[in-house]
This record gives sequence, structure tokens and C-alpha cells, in this order.
Amino acid sequence: MKALTLNADRRLSLAAHPKPEPRDALDVTVEVVQSGICGTDRSVLVGKFPAETGVVMGHEAVGVVDSVGAEVTRLAPGDRVVINPTLYCGTCPTCLEGHWDFCSNKAGTEVGLDYDGSFADFIRLPELFCHRVPDEMSFDRAVVIEPLTCALNNVEAGRLQPGETAVIVGAGPMGVVTAMAAERYGARVLLLEPDTTRRSLAQEVFSSPEFGERVTLHHPEEPELTGRGNLVIDSVGNQLERCLDYTATRGRIVIMGFNSNASATVQPLKLLQDGVQIIGAGDYNSMLFPKAVELARSMPLERVITHRFTLEEHEEAFKVLAATPGVDYSALKVLLVPHSEGAET
Amino acid sequence: MKALTLNADRRLSLAAHPKPEPRDALDVTVEVVQSGICGTDRSVLVGKFPAETGVVMGHEAVGVVDSVGAEVTRLAPGDRVVINPTLYCGTCPTCLEGHWDFCSNKAGTEVGLDYDGSFADFIRLPELFCHRVPDEMSFDRAVVIEPLTCALNNVEAGRLQPGETAVIVGAGPMGVVTAMAAERYGARVLLLEPDTTRRSLAQEVFSSPEFGERVTLHHPEEPELTGRGNLVIDSVGNQLERCLDYTATRGRIVIMGFNSNASATVQPLKLLQDGVQIIGAGDYNSMLFPKAVELARSMPLERVITHRFTLEEHEEAFKVLAATPGVDYSALKVLLVPHSEGAET
Amino acid sequence: MKALTLNADRRLSLAAHPKPEPRDALDVTVEVVQSGICGTDRSVLVGKFPAETGVVMGHEAVGVVDSVGAEVTRLAPGDRVVINPTLYCGTCPTCLEGHWDFCSNKAGTEVGLDYDGSFADFIRLPELFCHRVPDEMSFDRAVVIEPLTCALNNVEAGRLQPGETAVIVGAGPMGVVTAMAAERYGARVLLLEPDTTRRSLAQEVFSSPEFGERVTLHHPEEPELTGRGNLVIDSVGNQLERCLDYTATRGRIVIMGFNSNASATVQPLKLLQDGVQIIGAGDYNSMLFPKAVELARSMPLERVITHRFTLEEHEEAFKVLAATPGVDYSALKVLLVPHSEGAET
Amino acid sequence: MKALTLNADRRLSLAAHPKPEPRDALDVTVEVVQSGICGTDRSVLVGKFPAETGVVMGHEAVGVVDSVGAEVTRLAPGDRVVINPTLYCGTCPTCLEGHWDFCSNKAGTEVGLDYDGSFADFIRLPELFCHRVPDEMSFDRAVVIEPLTCALNNVEAGRLQPGETAVIVGAGPMGVVTAMAAERYGARVLLLEPDTTRRSLAQEVFSSPEFGERVTLHHPEEPELTGRGNLVIDSVGNQLERCLDYTATRGRIVIMGFNSNASATVQPLKLLQDGVQIIGAGDYNSMLFPKAVELARSMPLERVITHRFTLEEHEEAFKVLAATPGVDYSALKVLLVPHSEGAET
Repeated sequence: MKALTLNADRRLSLAAHPKPEPRDALDVTVEVVQSGICGTDRSVLVGKFPAETGVVMGHEAVGVVDSVGAEVTRLAPGDRVVINPTLYCGTCPTCLEGHWDFCSNKAGTEVGLDYDGSFADFIRLPELFCHRVPDEMSFDRAVVIEPLTCALNNVEAGRLQPGETAVIVGAGPMGVVTAMAAERYGARVLLLEPDTTRRSLAQEVFSSPEFGERVTLHHPEEPELTGRGNLVIDSVGNQLERCLDYTATRGRIVIMGFNSNASATVQPLKLLQDGVQIIGAGDYNSMLFPKAVELARSMPLERVITHRFTLEEHEEAFKVLAATPGVDYSALKVLLVPHSEGAET
Repeated sequence: MKALTLNADRRLSLAAHPKPEPRDALDVTVEVVQSGICGTDRSVLVGKFPAETGVVMGHEAVGVVDSVGAEVTRLAPGDRVVINPTLYCGTCPTCLEGHWDFCSNKAGTEVGLDYDGSFADFIRLPELFCHRVPDEMSFDRAVVIEPLTCALNNVEAGRLQPGETAVIVGAGPMGVVTAMAAERYGARVLLLEPDTTRRSLAQEVFSSPEFGERVTLHHPEEPELTGRGNLVIDSVGNQLERCLDYTATRGRIVIMGFNSNASATVQPLKLLQDGVQIIGAGDYNSMLFPKAVELARSMPLERVITHRFTLEEHEEAFKVLAATPGVDYSALKVLLVPHSEGAET
Repeated sequence: MKALTLNADRRLSLAAHPKPEPRDALDVTVEVVQSGICGTDRSVLVGKFPAETGVVMGHEAVGVVDSVGAEVTRLAPGDRVVINPTLYCGTCPTCLEGHWDFCSNKAGTEVGLDYDGSFADFIRLPELFCHRVPDEMSFDRAVVIEPLTCALNNVEAGRLQPGETAVIVGAGPMGVVTAMAAERYGARVLLLEPDTTRRSLAQEVFSSPEFGERVTLHHPEEPELTGRGNLVIDSVGNQLERCLDYTATRGRIVIMGFNSNASATVQPLKLLQDGVQIIGAGDYNSMLFPKAVELARSMPLERVITHRFTLEEHEEAFKVLAATPGVDYSALKVLLVPHSEGAET
Repeated sequence: MKALTLNADRRLSLAAHPKPEPRDALDVTVEVVQSGICGTDRSVLVGKFPAETGVVMGHEAVGVVDSVGAEVTRLAPGDRVVINPTLYCGTCPTCLEGHWDFCSNKAGTEVGLDYDGSFADFIRLPELFCHRVPDEMSFDRAVVIEPLTCALNNVEAGRLQPGETAVIVGAGPMGVVTAMAAERYGARVLLLEPDTTRRSLAQEVFSSPEFGERVTLHHPEEPELTGRGNLVIDSVGNQLERCLDYTATRGRIVIMGFNSNASATVQPLKLLQDGVQIIGAGDYNSMLFPKAVELARSMPLERVITHRFTLEEHEEAFKVLAATPGVDYSALKVLLVPHSEGAET
């Protein structure tokens, strides 16, 4: 089969790769229909996030079950599935307390980083991590379930309550999905983005009547944003100090974007007096995944998809996601489609 | 009556002062039995915390009701009371949502700062802020209820769960009371203090059999403290960076000590990946006060009292609380007793 | 002024009544624009709920400030307001703990029951209980804020989570508003109603595009309802046993409808084994009111209004709400409009 | 080896039984040191709870690891362990959401009911369900960890807060352990028991100084119990109606005792108006077990043990737990000790 693997020089190359078959009795092989490109994928390629040389990258995927191991009971060939890439062992002390997202045995189980991922024709995973896509749900919606789970994790870590105002910093694909999640949790959402193109792309996403006027787009410099957020989510990862300005008394800030270089200075007395909290949410706990599948039924997640490319076009796919100084972003969620003829639109 | 008032040069002086009488129909005048000295009082005298010149200082007090306004129904002269100094208006939009601790009309209502306090023979307060001391409870225990309420607020903001480990940084009077509170909430408590004398004073407090071995004293440099705290409370106010070392994965840090000069650098990615939260708790909500009265019934709070002085001895009283370079702290909670003959021991 | 007062024989009569003026310095007199009829009002008239003879009934009201007491600061004549009828003293021990909904001094403060209410040209209330209607919000929407607050209280007591399924039993006005609330809190909602007319009225309410397909109407006998509800709310008040059938494992049932005659038999072991909870929510805490005002901004609450009558037409107004054996209900929310010329549609 | 197995006529018989050896690579065989007798065990023998004929009964056990499967990594022969008998599959949809206590594949995994249990010389279990006993902890304390986990589950389901009052109905072994748990969670505890002997046995348990005066014993008929409990736990299982009397406004009732015949009548309107909740907690989620191990470090659980018998003496052991009309209960927790010479006291 074809697969995009990571070179020693942090580049992707498309090459023939052995098709994975169920190895353990509980394994499932899935024919990939399409995969989203995640910010982490880009971070790997620019050297900001570790990954193993030779790995097949990609972890946001939907597909069709191709073959199953001997003890698989919940899935059968032909089933439409969405992949939950957050593998956990289930037996370490951390897992025994239910904190699967902090599993002590993650080495070799990080899909697309040190475990072969979904930028390929096929992917193999334990049955546990393949969730059936509801019949009436398109693959375009389902492929955004994984980012949605991540968004839910951050929204819940921030203890967002209906009737509160959420400020989401950054209208990239994750910012947009997080804004959708916050709206679904009953909040009024202010989505901030300096890039004009991205701001209009996001504006377009939220023009759907079901959002009413609950999600609005703003330039991050608008003065009336000060103190507005009961919850402020930094989807960029280096905006903590700025987020403090956006935070209301008794507000919470959630750090969502991965940024290995970011550092911030805080005044403890100010946090104390304003009753402000700064929250690191960790990865999402796999328990959240079924909830994301359920919520996706009534969320037009597919609106965040702006581009789709074949595996062969991977360089172009990553390019539309890259920020060039002085040039606007042009994309939100970008998909890689192994079998372009099968791509649903 | 006698009262300790604040001079323009940030010093206290003992002077004759008009005895306060109930002014509004819901006012109560309380004859002060004794008052604790709070860290904030010291901060005022060293210029780190604002207060109005001429004010009678002091806000941790117990006493006996002397006289009551025409519409007071819950209290009568002779009743033993403890004072809740966190006045709120009850009618501003913040109060209407129950966030009394963030009342918008605090000006002129901060007991001991811009509203005459308890370092005096008498104090006047609305009935609402005088809580009856349970019959079987000593004034020595009751005078620590106010600091306990503050401790509860921080412990609850940190969402401490039974079975967790709490690391309390600093074994001054607030650190010790907070350690008591954390123990009562079901935690194992590690109380950190570099000062040898304070460490032994605190050790003595927790030698009471009802604490079992659940509260232990430690030097802050002990290497095995790393990553131990599910909850870490900084009772000093400038130890945030250090607290990050003490915090376990998925742990919470609560900033408790007031320190207007403190600043700290944090790495957002580290908070994110470790699932760590930094929490400013604000002042306590007055709703917590009845809970503190109830919990005090079974907590030997009086063990934290190490000294008591008359109002005349106020300079000496503040001196035992002062840190002199190279000299150990010698006190935990220090009381001021207007009528020394009436002081209970 | 005109007012509908309660006779000794539990009937309403329209009569001249002295116009209320601000009596205390914090009082406000509001000219009533319109009032909703609540189920409780009907219960009073059929003798199922106590009320004082001679009282002006009505407690769901919007209007315009007519005059204000000397110390009123937040409101001025001409301001558009919605009334929160849940008066509390703020000073009893229960109020001091923030449980305003269980205030110990309710006698003489129950609006429309033993305190003159809003089925009149004017009503007098403490400023605290008059909330400004947002500028862009119609009176038709605002008049449903009070029932919405009640709905929020029950939905929150049931700890409804986004992604869960809520079963609401009864599509009367409260059932419909509760379904709207549950949808806004992120749930999929199944609204049950045996009455054909009411079912189509409710269906019409939820045909608005912003509800997507998240709220669906069902006959209570549909077999596929068994075990569906993570949260089941009985808006009728005598359906507890039936609700147990609708409840999923680990589900919660909230009793919402007032029914003084209802009684139910439960099997404790079944509750234990299924992890089911039966929840009485009490009245709403006044703290919820501002949240309801905020949420109402993006909820088309006015869709629940089906009828409006003048005070003179009160008998007809109550009649459309009455169930006659064999005849379908014909109304959802019914309004009484003192000044019909001023009624907004 | 010796084992107590269940006959077709619901009696236990001591017989030779094949020693279980690790079967799967993750299995562990534990040499049983001692087992507690649970109320469920008695219910099986009197025909009130189902169990499979031929099964080795018993599920509250501590012991020493005898042998381990090929892939066991956390345990080795000689390790002291306590058994968590709540097996779950980890792969069904319910388990995937973390609700292990409602696992869909329980058939054949109920230790001591349809999976060979601990009233035997040895027991085999997956490594996952064997928790290391802390070095300093006695087997007598550790054998009560399983009942403690059950108690924690009920206390947490009842959302007990520090400073609240818990009323525990029934001072049998579970009632006493639950009272200990409630005390440790910060509550004042009223423990009710009509049986004079049991009341004094329980009184003796709580005479240890670490409980202060926080746990008191009461006859269930004491009139001052009315409305006292913020949380009321029915450890008997047929006292729901009575519990309603003990419950304070806004209180919660948790049904804990298994009683297949119990039925209760409730008035929905009363629950609504008083804000009362009736809670079925389900079995405990295995996630709670590590917390129970940690809390046991500072809880004198061994005080609840009143008797120990050899397997040969099983009839006598069950007899001391049986209620004979007119005769007082004489026991709290009763242990069965396979190797009496090794029993720790």
C-alpha cells in the first residue's frame, strides 16, 4: 500500500509500505477514507515535536473496516469507523484510576508519531480505538470528531457553563472547532483572529443559521474584549499573557495550543485577587470519544474543511497550512485522501 | 474606649476612641474579647497593603454582644459571637449572583482597613456578620474561625479530595490552619517550612492524637517532595515556581499568600502536558463562614495560638511576628486582648 | 388601578385596587406590560395550592419602571424590566449560606400568593427583584424568562451534560420551555405528550432552524422510549413511576410538576442496582435569574406564547389552559395584558 | 486445596478443590490469608441473591502472591495483596466510557458468585485486580479495604461535604465502615442502630481518640434525629421511608443495603419542595479502589473485626452474623482464615 512516512530529515515521503493486517486477536485493519492534518503533524515536520523516523504519520482518520482479528466482536468488515488515536494500556496504575490520558505506557502507542498512522491506504488498531460512525453521518463530519474530542476536553477542563462567555484565541481549525464546542455547551463565543482571511473563513463557518448569533469573530486588538471571557482558551499556545487581559473576574484560562517555546510571566497576587485560574488540560481522556461522536450528530463539523488533497499532493497540502510572513492563512481543516475517487464531499 | 488606630505614617497608636453604638436598626455592638493579628495587618504596617489613616485595625475577633439595634432578632446582649469581617452589599449585580466575595461596593466596608475594626474594646457591625459561638466552644478556638474560613476557601478552590496529598508551603499561622483544614478534608498533608522554630511549633500543633500521622513537617528542600502534591497551596505568596516542582501530574496549585511584589515565569506547554492548574481563589465567600463554625467544633484550632498581648503591648505583639534576618520566627497565631483580665487561656 | 384579586371562594375578580407606590427606599413600582399565567395560578383557583384571599395574583411579568424609592440606584422610570418573584430576606441562617430559595422568612413575600402580584396595572417590588430587559430583547421573549429560570433550575439539579439525552414528560408550557433549556445545555431532547394538539403546538415551536433536529416530539407510549433518558424530567408531577421506565442506567429523574396528590412506589434495590437518582430541585435560587436573562438572548422563548388576553378576559384566559375530559389542550403559554393597546406581538 | 463451595441447596460445604494456577499470561494466583464475610454472602445462603452452584464463595480477601503468569509485571510471588473483586472487561461500550461498574460483560466475572472466590486456600485473578498492600499496613486492616471502597462509593454518590452531618442507618459491619468513611470525608456522623449489642460494639469502635466526638451512636427512635441528615445512608436497604424523616432540607438519601423485597412509597411533591434526592449508587467503580487503599493508611479499619474462624468453622462464622428474633447481634466483621496458624491478630 501507499503511505506517507517520516524521513530522518523530518520530511514526508510517499512510498510503498506493507499493508498492516490484524496481528492480535483484537486488532482491526481499517481502509482509510480520509485523514485530517493536525497542527501536531506540522510541528513534527518543522522539528518542534518528536516523532520516530520511519513512522507512517496521521492520526485523524475515518475509514472502512477491512479485516478483523479472531476475537473482534463489535466490528466487521465494511463497517464505517472513526479512529480514536489515544491508545492506552489499561493496566498501569494511572489507567487503573481511569486517567487513561496519562497512561504510563505510551511509548510505541502514539498513533502517527511512534505507531503507524493514517496517512496511508490502511491502518491497524485495536478494536477498542475504532468507533462506529453513525449511519446518517458523513465521513466529512466524522473526520472532525477527533479534533472535536480535543476541543471538548479543553472546554470541560475550563468548566464552561451555559450562559457564560467564551473567548477563543485563534481561528485556525482547532480554534474554530473549539468555538463550535463552546457554543454547543451553551456559551456565547467570541472567536479572535488577526489574520483577515482566516477570520472570513471562520465567519463563513458560523453563518449557518443553527449558530444564531452566538459565535462572533473579532480582531484580537478590539478594546472591548478586555475582561470579557468567563473562559478564555488559547488555541495558539503562546498567548497566555494576552489571555489574562481577556479574562473576567473569576474566569478560567485554558492553554490548548502546543508551543514548546512559549513562556509567560504571571503576577500571583493578581490571579489571587481576581480569582483567576490557569488550566492545563492534558490530552483528552479516551472516555470523551463516545460523547464527541454523539455530539457530532448535531454539529456541522464538516464546515471547517476547506481543502482536500491526495497523498501524492502532500507537500501542497501542508503548504496551505503554513504561515508565510505577510501572507494570509488560506485554510482551515485540510484533508489527505488516499483514494481520491472515494472521497466524499 | 481604647482602640489601636492607624497613623498617617503607617504606625499603630493606642488612643481613646468613641465607643461605637448601633447606628442602623440591624447593627450590633460587640465587646471584643480578643483579636488575632493577621498577616494583612502586618502588611499594612510595612506599607504593602492599603488602609485608611485613622481606621481602627483588626478583623479576626470574638466577643460578647453589648447592645443591638431595633430590628436585630437573632442576637441579644450577652451572646458570644465571632465576627465575619467580609461585608458585602447584597444588592450589586455581583452579589445578586451570589459572588459576595467580589461585591462591587467594598469601599468603606473592609473591616480594619477602611471600616473600624476589632483592635479595640468594642466594634460595631451589621448583625449579619456576627455569628454565634457554639456554647461548648472556647473563645480561643472561635478566634481562629476567621482564618479557618480563609483556609477552607483555598482548600475548596483547589478541589482537594479525600485520599489526596496536599503540600502546604509555609508553616506560619495560615499555613498551619490550612494544613488542619486539608487534613479535615481527608488529605494526607505535607507542611513545608524552612524556619526551624516554626517547624517545631507546627510539629507541636500536630502532635495531638486526632491528627494521627496525617500531617507531617518537612524542610522545603527535601528532594522527595518533588511531584508529591495533588494540591499545592502557597501560603507565602511568592513560591509559585517552586510549587510547580511539588505538583503531581494533574495537580492544582492555589496561590494563597498575599505578596504584592511576586512574579513568576511559567511554561504553558508544561502546564498543558502535565494537566496542571494554577488557581487564584479570591477572598472567601461569606457563605463559607457557617461551615467554618461547624467544622471548628471538631478541630483543635486553639493549638495554633502561641502568644497573647494587651492592646498596650501591641508593638511587642507585632514584633514576635516579624522576621529578622538570621533569627527564627518565634510565633504562630498572636492575639491582642483588650481586657487582659478577661482573657481565656 | 385594575387588578385581578383572589376571592374567598377561590375565584378571580377584576376590581379597582390602590396603585402601589414605592414604600421603602429600595422599592420600585413597575407598570405591568404583560404577565404569563403559570400552572401554579391555576392550581390556586382549583384549590390545590394555598394563597391568601384578597391578594393580587400573577408572578411572571414584564413591564416599565414607573417610580422608584429614594435609594434605588440601578433603575429609573422608563426602564424595561422583568420581574423575579422569588423574594428572600437575605438575613436568615439559610440565606446566609446562600440558599435563598429556602429562605426561612417567606411568609408575606410570595408574589401573587400572599404578596400583591402582576395581574394588575402596576406592581411594587424591591429593586433587587427587578432585572433590566436587554435593549434588543422583546417583552414577549422577556416574559418567558421567569419560567426559563425554573426550567434551568430543574435541568441543573438533574446535572444534565452536553451529549446526553433528556426526556421531558409533558409538553405544556413548562415542558416546552424545559425542553428548550435542555437543548441549550447541549442535550438531545425527547419531549413526550399524549395530547395531539399540544404535541403539534410544541412541534411547531421546535421547527425553528436553530434547534436542528435536537428536539423531537413523542407520544408517551412509544416503546422505544424505555431507558432512553440520562435525565428525565417530570413536568407534570405525577409521572414518577413512569419516569423510571424512561430512565437509562445511571440516569437521573427530576420531579418538576407540582402535584399535591401524587404518590409513587419505588423499589430501592432497583434504584441501587441501576444507579438511578430521584431529585427534588426545590424552587430556583434567585442567583439563577441573571443567567436566565443572558441565555434568553439567544433562545426564541416567545415561540411558546399562543394566546394573549386582557385582564377583563381572564376567565377565557384560564379556560384555554383547562383540560376538559375528551377535549385537547389548545394552548401553551397564555398572557394577560393589562393595557391591550400596549401589547407587543 | 480446601475451598468452601456452594451446594445446589444453597449451603456451603468444605471440600478439596483443584488449586487454581495462572491460566492467562496476566493471571496471578494468591494464597489467601483471610477473607471477610459480606452481607451478600449471607444473602446467597438464605436465597435472596443469585449465585452459581459449585462456585467457591468469598470476595473480600487479602493474601500473598503465590505464582504469576508470563506477562505479569507489577507483582511477584511473596507480594502482599488485597483483592478487588469487581472485574470488568474494559472493552464494552460502557467500559469505554469508564463506567466499569456497569460493565456489560459481568457474566462469569462476579467473584464468589459465578467466578471462584476467596473462601479457599488460593484464588486466581487477573493482575489488574490485585492491589499491593502498603508495607506498614496489617492484613487485618487491608481485609477491610474492599468494604471501605463500597462505603466510599456511597458516600461520594451522596456528595457528602466536610462540615455536613451524615446519618448512617444501621451499625452492622457496613454501617460502621461507612460511618468511618463519612467521618474521614469531614462529616459529623450519627450512626443509628436499634440492637443494643451492636450499638455497643460500634461505640467501642469509635472510642479511638482519632475520631474525637465526631461519630456518635443513637437509637433510631430518638426524636431529635428528625431532619438532621444532610446525607442519610440506608445501610439496611429497607428503610427508605424512615430515611426521609432523618433528611434535612436539600438533603440526599443513598440506598446502600441490598434488599430484594423492599418497596417504599414517596410523595413527589414533598421531595420537590424539600429539595431532597434519593440516590442509587450502583456498585463501586474499580477506579475507587486505589483511593481506598490510600485512605486505609490512616483509618483504623481493623477495629471493625470482631470474630475470626477457620474454613472448617464456617457454619459457626455465619451463625454469629445471623439475626435470631429476640437475640442481639453479636458481631461486626467476621473473618474466615484458611490457615489459622498464619492469622494475624
